[in-house]
Amino acid sequence: MTTTSTLITADPGKQELFIVREFNASRELVFRAFSEADLIARWLGPRELKTRIEKHDNRTHGSWRYIHYDDAGNEYAFNGVIHEVAAPERIIRTFEFEGMPETGHVSIEFLTLETLEGNRCRATIQAIYRSVEDRDGHIVSGMERGVLDSHSRLDELLDAMN
Amino acid sequence: MTTTSTLITADPGKQELFIVREFNASRELVFRAFSEADLIARWLGPRELKTRIEKHDNRTHGSWRYIHYDDAGNEYAFNGVIHEVAAPERIIRTFEFEGMPETGHVSIEFLTLETLEGNRCRATIQAIYRSVEDRDGHIVSGMERGVLDSHSRLDELLDAMN
Repeated sequence: MTTTSTLITADPGKQELFIVREFNASRELVFRAFSEADLIARWLGPRELKTRIEKHDNRTHGSWRYIHYDDAGNEYAFNGVIHEVAAPERIIRTFEFEGMPETGHVSIEFLTLETLEGNRCRATIQAIYRSVEDRDGHIVSGMERGVLDSHSRLDELLDAMN
Repeated sequence: MTTTSTLITADPGKQELFIVREFNASRELVFRAFSEADLIARWLGPRELKTRIEKHDNRTHGSWRYIHYDDAGNEYAFNGVIHEVAAPERIIRTFEFEGMPETGHVSIEFLTLETLEGNRCRATIQAIYRSVEDRDGHIVSGMERGVLDSHSRLDELLDAMN
């Protein structure tokens, strides 16, 4: 198995960032892992948290809500609407962390999956924020470790499904 | 009646723009004009086009689709999802013009309404795009005239409702 790593790019002064990761699985399988509630619950989020899928209407003009939680009763909720599901290539959705002091700090995410040689797949997420401050706030909140944990867990899930 | 004008700001190199307009009506009335399908159909779009509301599920996690059309049979369709409706203050939604050569050129719009003195209201729309190119493409497509016509028509509608 080839080991891959996650590249997160956030250019200074821009209100967007890019997350790029290759997976040792077909685009169809990776798309399922990003689309099906029971699969998402098995890889999304930091390793010390569990994920409860409150809503996952995974279709164009659908919506979603997830909660990460720990055994101590802490909960971290996220929600958004789904603008487009174009299987097995793209999902466009909004994203909001409900733990902010006020609502309205909403970003939009474009997930694009590309087929690579050797039954591999590249996932690119472009996330666009209301401001540079919102983007940088998301980064320093621990997003990077959450993403790295998630992708490492997703590697394991894809291995088990392959 | 005070005459007001629309200010559109698009700083070079940014992937966002701002549209600011004051109206001679209360925030509650302006919010209704942005929220109710039969009212939207009476002011949205250039003067030479009519508007048909195909879908208008105006709630948090709802969605919408409008068609502007003319007597010659030309149609221009738009759609999106609604992330948040916070009456009478804010609507956050995605926006896509269906006439593009490919799907995926999606923007996100934050409409904020503020109460001003003298039963007036300020509307601010922040629109954020996937790229500077998408933003500039929207501007040169005739967006400005569409916005100016819309706001002028909205003035007339608010006058009639006041």
